[in-house]
Amino acid sequence: MCGIVGFVSDRKVKVEELISGLKKLEYRGYDSAGLAYNVNHSIKYLKKPGRISEIEKLLLNEGLLEESFYSGIAHTRWATHGIVSEQNSHPHLDCKEELAVVHNGIIENFQELRTGLEIKGHIFKSETDSEVIAHLIEDKYNGDLFESVLRALKELEGAYAIAVVHKDKPDQIIAARKGSPLVISSNENITMLASDVTPLLKYSKEMNFLNDGEIAILTPKGYSIFNLDGVPLEKKPISITWDESLAEKSGYPHFMLKEIFEQPIALESVLVGRLKDGKPQIKEVQSLESFVKNQMKKVYVVACGTSYHAGLAAKYFMNRYSDIDFDIEVASEFRYMNPAIDSNTLVLAISQSGETIDTLEGVRLAKKKGAYVLAISNVVGSTISRESDAVLYLNTGPEIGVAATKTYTAQIVLLYTLVAQLIYWKGYKNKELDDIMRTIEKMPELFRIILDKTNGHMMELVKKYKNFKDMMYIGRVFGFPAALEGALKLKEISYINAIAYQAGELKHGPIALLDGNFPVFAIVPTGKLREKMISNIMEVKARGARVIALTPKDDLQAKKICDDYIDVPSISEPLIPLVVAPITQLFAYYIAVQKGLDPDKPRNLAKSVTVE
Amino acid sequence: MCGIVGFVSDRKVKVEELISGLKKLEYRGYDSAGLAYNVNHSIKYLKKPGRISEIEKLLLNEGLLEESFYSGIAHTRWATHGIVSEQNSHPHLDCKEELAVVHNGIIENFQELRTGLEIKGHIFKSETDSEVIAHLIEDKYNGDLFESVLRALKELEGAYAIAVVHKDKPDQIIAARKGSPLVISSNENITMLASDVTPLLKYSKEMNFLNDGEIAILTPKGYSIFNLDGVPLEKKPISITWDESLAEKSGYPHFMLKEIFEQPIALESVLVGRLKDGKPQIKEVQSLESFVKNQMKKVYVVACGTSYHAGLAAKYFMNRYSDIDFDIEVASEFRYMNPAIDSNTLVLAISQSGETIDTLEGVRLAKKKGAYVLAISNVVGSTISRESDAVLYLNTGPEIGVAATKTYTAQIVLLYTLVAQLIYWKGYKNKELDDIMRTIEKMPELFRIILDKTNGHMMELVKKYKNFKDMMYIGRVFGFPAALEGALKLKEISYINAIAYQAGELKHGPIALLDGNFPVFAIVPTGKLREKMISNIMEVKARGARVIALTPKDDLQAKKICDDYIDVPSISEPLIPLVVAPITQLFAYYIAVQKGLDPDKPRNLAKSVTVE
Repeated sequence: MCGIVGFVSDRKVKVEELISGLKKLEYRGYDSAGLAYNVNHSIKYLKKPGRISEIEKLLLNEGLLEESFYSGIAHTRWATHGIVSEQNSHPHLDCKEELAVVHNGIIENFQELRTGLEIKGHIFKSETDSEVIAHLIEDKYNGDLFESVLRALKELEGAYAIAVVHKDKPDQIIAARKGSPLVISSNENITMLASDVTPLLKYSKEMNFLNDGEIAILTPKGYSIFNLDGVPLEKKPISITWDESLAEKSGYPHFMLKEIFEQPIALESVLVGRLKDGKPQIKEVQSLESFVKNQMKKVYVVACGTSYHAGLAAKYFMNRYSDIDFDIEVASEFRYMNPAIDSNTLVLAISQSGETIDTLEGVRLAKKKGAYVLAISNVVGSTISRESDAVLYLNTGPEIGVAATKTYTAQIVLLYTLVAQLIYWKGYKNKELDDIMRTIEKMPELFRIILDKTNGHMMELVKKYKNFKDMMYIGRVFGFPAALEGALKLKEISYINAIAYQAGELKHGPIALLDGNFPVFAIVPTGKLREKMISNIMEVKARGARVIALTPKDDLQAKKICDDYIDVPSISEPLIPLVVAPITQLFAYYIAVQKGLDPDKPRNLAKSVTVE
Repeated sequence: MCGIVGFVSDRKVKVEELISGLKKLEYRGYDSAGLAYNVNHSIKYLKKPGRISEIEKLLLNEGLLEESFYSGIAHTRWATHGIVSEQNSHPHLDCKEELAVVHNGIIENFQELRTGLEIKGHIFKSETDSEVIAHLIEDKYNGDLFESVLRALKELEGAYAIAVVHKDKPDQIIAARKGSPLVISSNENITMLASDVTPLLKYSKEMNFLNDGEIAILTPKGYSIFNLDGVPLEKKPISITWDESLAEKSGYPHFMLKEIFEQPIALESVLVGRLKDGKPQIKEVQSLESFVKNQMKKVYVVACGTSYHAGLAAKYFMNRYSDIDFDIEVASEFRYMNPAIDSNTLVLAISQSGETIDTLEGVRLAKKKGAYVLAISNVVGSTISRESDAVLYLNTGPEIGVAATKTYTAQIVLLYTLVAQLIYWKGYKNKELDDIMRTIEKMPELFRIILDKTNGHMMELVKKYKNFKDMMYIGRVFGFPAALEGALKLKEISYINAIAYQAGELKHGPIALLDGNFPVFAIVPTGKLREKMISNIMEVKARGARVIALTPKDDLQAKKICDDYIDVPSISEPLIPLVVAPITQLFAYYIAVQKGLDPDKPRNLAKSVTVE
């Protein structure tokens, strides 16, 4: 995690611009912030635990916001090694405080490196893995900063995006990447770097994404990129067309609520040019057609967290309408388990940010095994998109709330459309699937109705349930990913220990947990599974647990046996993960707000998981 | 769930024998108990909430334990429909109290049937689904009990094992089965029925297992079995060789602890004749060889609860040493999701009891789709064993503790041996696999050492952790099923909301839960994943959570960064689910005991899940 930003210029940039850039990255971490800059042939630095606004106040009080600098770097931290403290905040400096480093990633061999440097006399001030980088560069320093950094990098194991400034090099920032994202850009006055494009958009639209194993020198005149042997590389920048205003709150108290209400638009955007009159026509994957028809034997999803839940819904969708093999694995497991894939496998790599490190490594493993890799991401130019054979973008605009909402439902809609496309290509015909696809086209409108109807009633329900410490979400088949995602939302932003189970698994253990202090959120389907779920609810009630049912409006029996209920549209089973999502999102959101928590910035979490 | 028992004789059986038989079935449920018997041309009945010992006391006080009866039935309940109460206890009687019914299962259409009967004037006393059976038989009664029951059964939807007595038929019990187990037996004096063989063993070793759709008349002279059209069936009994003394506690305070310590013997038993000098030689599946070599394209595990966790370890095992496809699904989902299986699939149905209803239905679905179904069960003659194409028995003896312990590790050892057999048959060679198989042969001895070393230190650890309300278990790859199972044990018997995660998933949500009140149980492997787990522990520590590490003895760094640790043998990764199991079992056991809970009889749970 962590966000980094850096500017180098002929003393035209002010400290407040570093802070303003850093704020755009606060979604990447907000445990502490710090900055270091080159002024009067020395390195001035400042760090502070807490949000970026804390250090901003400090700078304001000391009159430093207006100060200009030559080269400067800043960092917003998501703690990995060492607790949240001033010492552990970035930037980290060498013994003589002549150079400063910001780092996003994890240095795996830091303990050995640190021990070696301590023997040589280096004094460490923090518990972090990152500080070792500063001392290692100091150890190598021979007057040439670029060369010293290059030599230091050769000893580092793990993942990093770093930026380095030195008191004697006011016209340089050295930046490098392995495993964590880094973007470079420049205009006539300033050369810049950041963990993603958002801090840079106001200065330029031309972005250069560093690849793993690349190092760059940034000067006021521009930048040069090299490989780790110091050989210069020719890399053209990419034009970015994002509209910055998309990232504003539009009047909602939190990004999360804004993004929940953006879902109708998000679902429209993701379907544009991909589904028409119930027929999937995904232009971006037309090149896949012959692979699918002649070669594909299996689909394999690699994803983490919420994206994994979307993938699981897609698995059930594929199963329902075809006998095409479909496996799914959490990316952090996939990487290390030697998954059964080969050149006949279509691997779907799902990552909102496109930077999730485990998913990225999954992509690399899949490609090594000869699979065709299709990325599903929300971020154009992200590493996973670039390294995959093809990519489908969600097109939902930036998602700032740490808890995924609109990108989750957009992922499901896109995955269902893709799966339908694969099924049709394989020659299957299915009337129910045709109907479902037509209903998916109407999803944006249905979401408007659900959001409109549910939002008003939520507060009353939330007041009843906000003080419980535990909660269980149960579903069956398509209700299960819906339960998993509902529970995850609640965990993430309300810190309630919400667990999800296939309702049929209750009696194999989890039901032992239930009593009057452990409410159950039951997703009641229509169709053949309804009776089974009613039986499960009866069992849960017999243990004294309160039950909230998510139930079709006309299921009066279900409503009668439960303590509370929320209407969902009476819809065919495969669409349950979609129509349930906005409801469980709103429930989690209002619980967090009622508990006085900030749903946009849950503790311990950051938006884009670029460390393992 | 629920257990039922019944005796019919020429007035030679005493009430205390009904109670003594019922006690053998207490593992199937212990919410309430009841009995009804035919004496002096009327039905005498008694019910009481609580363990069977409660109703036994009552019978003793009223001098009824010594009473003899003609036909009698008894029931121990695990509540599904309706709370635990005297009204909801079995047996259920008709309006005139002329007949009594005990029932194990769920009647899905009870609401409609009840409404219809109420219109006809029947008065119901309970909230159960079961009571409807008594009134339905009353409604059909024409003087012929057998025919009346037969007619009633035709209207029932759902699952049942039932036994019926009538005041006018002192020489009859009518019994029937659909979806819930029922065994019949007889000797020269008595004819008997029960949910499993244990209450019957002291009277006879010859057992007749009813199949779905069968109905029987039991009389003092013997029994006759019919199909639902009333056509007599020829069914030979099976000889059972179980030793009743196996089911005793052997001096341990609880069955669970006894069974934890039986693991070395259980692992020896499961391997006898199946693994020798590191070579798998499973005689029972020799007939599979040509199917595997010529036809098998995929393995698919269907299981619930703990058996699912054993199956997951087997999946990782298959992945590590081959590229044979291996899918796994929870049985209650498998049944309803149209899984991608065909005649080239080997389905492994894993169920300790062999009666798990969802797994049984999974077997039926798999067979319908043409798959080869191999059952893995601990109970000879169980329904799943009988309906599968082949069966591998665990041979561990009865497991009475509701929380599975010895059968779990026996399942893993058996599954690993089976997977190795499949891999070798498919022509793979792998030096590491050869080594692992040789180590598995030494597992019984290793378990003796682990149990011996761990047991003494556990109490101190447990005192530190018993008051936490939540706990998280984390692992990677083979550590993940180990984490799932560790968390499940704790949930089941200590009611701590213990959740399990792939350590790499923490940052995608669950880490938000962690603080000083939410300890983490981390399974530290050897090999390439060790560094990753150390990083995860550092992240968790940075959030203030206490960490207990399960770590190889010589991993001093891991021990240093954690609050507490338990030594595990330094062993290669695939064996982690085995060596970790006795430790997490003991941890859960002692936590429960320290909290004053009965680990053998967790609330809300029963041993064999025969309802959905």
